[in-house]
Amino acid sequence: MLASWVPVPADSHFPLNNLPYGVFSTAASPLPRPCVAIGDSVLDLAAVQRAGLLSGPVLSAAGDCFQQPTLNAFMALGRPAWAEARATLLHLLSAGEGTLRDDTVLRSRVLLPASEVRMHLPAAIGDYTDFYASREHATNIGIMFRGRENALQPNWLHLPVGYHGRASSIVLSGTDVRRPRGQVVRGTAQPQVPAFEPSAALDFELEMGCFIGPGNELGCPIPVERAAEHIFGYVLVNDWSARDIQRWEYVPLGPFTSKNFATSISPWIVTPDALEPFACAAPAQEDPQPLPYLRQQPGERTNYDIQLEVSIEPTGSSGSGSGCGPNGGSGGAGESSSSGQATVVTRSNLKTMYWTLPQMIAHHTAGGCNLRPGDLLASGTLSCEGPLGAGCLQEATWGGSRPVQLEDGTERTFLLDGDTVIMSGACQGDGYRVGFGECRGTLLPAAEL
Amino acid sequence: MLASWVPVPADSHFPLNNLPYGVFSTAASPLPRPCVAIGDSVLDLAAVQRAGLLSGPVLSAAGDCFQQPTLNAFMALGRPAWAEARATLLHLLSAGEGTLRDDTVLRSRVLLPASEVRMHLPAAIGDYTDFYASREHATNIGIMFRGRENALQPNWLHLPVGYHGRASSIVLSGTDVRRPRGQVVRGTAQPQVPAFEPSAALDFELEMGCFIGPGNELGCPIPVERAAEHIFGYVLVNDWSARDIQRWEYVPLGPFTSKNFATSISPWIVTPDALEPFACAAPAQEDPQPLPYLRQQPGERTNYDIQLEVSIEPTGSSGSGSGCGPNGGSGGAGESSSSGQATVVTRSNLKTMYWTLPQMIAHHTAGGCNLRPGDLLASGTLSCEGPLGAGCLQEATWGGSRPVQLEDGTERTFLLDGDTVIMSGACQGDGYRVGFGECRGTLLPAAEL
Repeated sequence: MLASWVPVPADSHFPLNNLPYGVFSTAASPLPRPCVAIGDSVLDLAAVQRAGLLSGPVLSAAGDCFQQPTLNAFMALGRPAWAEARATLLHLLSAGEGTLRDDTVLRSRVLLPASEVRMHLPAAIGDYTDFYASREHATNIGIMFRGRENALQPNWLHLPVGYHGRASSIVLSGTDVRRPRGQVVRGTAQPQVPAFEPSAALDFELEMGCFIGPGNELGCPIPVERAAEHIFGYVLVNDWSARDIQRWEYVPLGPFTSKNFATSISPWIVTPDALEPFACAAPAQEDPQPLPYLRQQPGERTNYDIQLEVSIEPTGSSGSGSGCGPNGGSGGAGESSSSGQATVVTRSNLKTMYWTLPQMIAHHTAGGCNLRPGDLLASGTLSCEGPLGAGCLQEATWGGSRPVQLEDGTERTFLLDGDTVIMSGACQGDGYRVGFGECRGTLLPAAEL
Repeated sequence: MLASWVPVPADSHFPLNNLPYGVFSTAASPLPRPCVAIGDSVLDLAAVQRAGLLSGPVLSAAGDCFQQPTLNAFMALGRPAWAEARATLLHLLSAGEGTLRDDTVLRSRVLLPASEVRMHLPAAIGDYTDFYASREHATNIGIMFRGRENALQPNWLHLPVGYHGRASSIVLSGTDVRRPRGQVVRGTAQPQVPAFEPSAALDFELEMGCFIGPGNELGCPIPVERAAEHIFGYVLVNDWSARDIQRWEYVPLGPFTSKNFATSISPWIVTPDALEPFACAAPAQEDPQPLPYLRQQPGERTNYDIQLEVSIEPTGSSGSGSGCGPNGGSGGAGESSSSGQATVVTRSNLKTMYWTLPQMIAHHTAGGCNLRPGDLLASGTLSCEGPLGAGCLQEATWGGSRPVQLEDGTERTFLLDGDTVIMSGACQGDGYRVGFGECRGTLLPAAEL
């Protein structure tokens, strides 16, 4: 663990080794601007830059990349700027370095207690793409729908299956999520007749998200061996899903209203530099080998060993009903705080993901599609082996047939109104952790009509 | 036809009745800003606003909505602002009105020959959604894949099937489009083994696009009877599609790289006010009736009678190969001009579309998904009855089995490198037309690897 003069609690996700990026504001200074987390503090990068302390050659030439309400401008600069910023911040915050530590006026202006800041979406997300990259997850879902012999679709081992998600409804951790209404078919009568009802199969999906740094020009694919240069960093993603709506709508064009009501992300973007010590070999791809545009050399074929966890925390009260209409308030932007007892329902890991992020990027752009700084790619549900390895309730309860038990004595097939879903993720180092913090959201009842 | 002091050629798509919105720049004044088209001229709305001539109460209160590089700010204002702007412009440009006409200095500053301007994307498009709303199209595709008895999927008559498209690769009419490479399976051997090749089944899709004005709050659906208030206007859309890539990749999450390499739109946004005289009854929905959240009263259930046409114009030369890589130039942003003979391959119409735009908006937001100003919704391929009624080559050639004949003596199953696809659309009034101009794009060969 790298030593800092900023206090870092022993169990913190944010030692000096990490330095994840976010965007924050305070009551006194409500303009959102970039920051990094260190222990229980945040360092205001706009203020640090104004103080002349981010003045290496690359960032100096790049201008006011931190005087912005999002990280998009910094993301666009690419690895030389990111490396310089990290080196500068590691130095400024390291134990023994007095520039900031001993300037009490400046220090009080740039270093703020995390408890006093409000976090914002870290980027203006132009496009959001969701993949389906976990073999364990795709296999489980496949067995449920088609049986063990035909679990994986014919294309699954040849390409990272993905689809375009909805960027407008990506919300920050802590934002309440409303249960959607949608078309669902109950029972097995033929012909199928749908009803318009609140989803009765509301699920979480544990995913890893990847923010794109520099993009590519339209028409110019990113080769798989260059794809890592385009990765700015990673967040936790909860891709809330309404399974009953999904089942009826998804043929032939894929999920739509079953997914686009909300996607939650964690506020802190953990960088490849911080995760590098936790790189590990990704699963081999030998049967079949992928096509050359997706093929990675064994040494380059890495994931990270990130321990992922999902808890459900029920509340007695499930909040108010409405929110919309002429007299209603906010429909989805509130923040509930749950007060129940949390039960861990998932323990997974990024390390077994079959298709790596560089492969997803290479495939996404193979036909010429352009990525832009701030675009978000997500992995799809991350499941792994083990008793709690399922990354969503659809798998954990085997389609709703085997409820999971919560510690308060209740059970769940799918989520109930008032449930708070809490995702967390961290890499375990020698005496320290590099983590993501939490991605949480409370499910509100469907809006009144 | 409303008379204007600005000359309007007899066959113009842009008489005073139309006043479509766009964004333009000139060589002398390269900052993009909003405009309207009138005859063969464009009226610079930024300059008109600066001259104090867009000073009704709503626009005055709204500030500098035209001093912007996109129309998003104006779109967000909603119908009162749009109505005021239209009334003001109709007055300023009407035959007997001298304010602009007689002020030669001001007139020369605000009214420019269309031939001297460069058009830009009219909006920053946050999210792009594509539907599948034409019954004729869905039926034809269904017959090809599943036979006449099961042509429509079980959900098709119950909801407007749609999916999220890619916003980053939406390009303006006139932008060249590169043929994508992708995974395709040739032949019928089992198990299927894909190759990575340039698509051999590159198709156009004739669609109508709808730009969203005011959005909705996350969690708060837009009722179908209020949905029209959220429509700013319409453009032509060519949703280029690689059928061979699509066939292999689309199960189970829908089209991805087969669509995301490019979508072309026409530069002029035609407003509901301009189209109102051409409103006509949409097809009845009685078997089955849609669910109440999608049900429209018969009088409200309208489309527009817009005659749509697609031509293919071949060229002898098919352009250069590459474009990417260290020494390459632009991959997809160039502009080719074809010089061949155009053949009309499609004559369709918006009027028979089964799911109306208000229904698409109501369904899109039914689960709480938020729309934002500048979002683009497209109809999906618009086919209708008749010998040239197919809105894409997949249908016109029945999956490539019945080539279409071009006037230069060649034939097409799918598009060849160098082909220019030209879409146009217009409503026929009594002695005038309200039209969209053209949406064109030339297909370049796949980039070299």
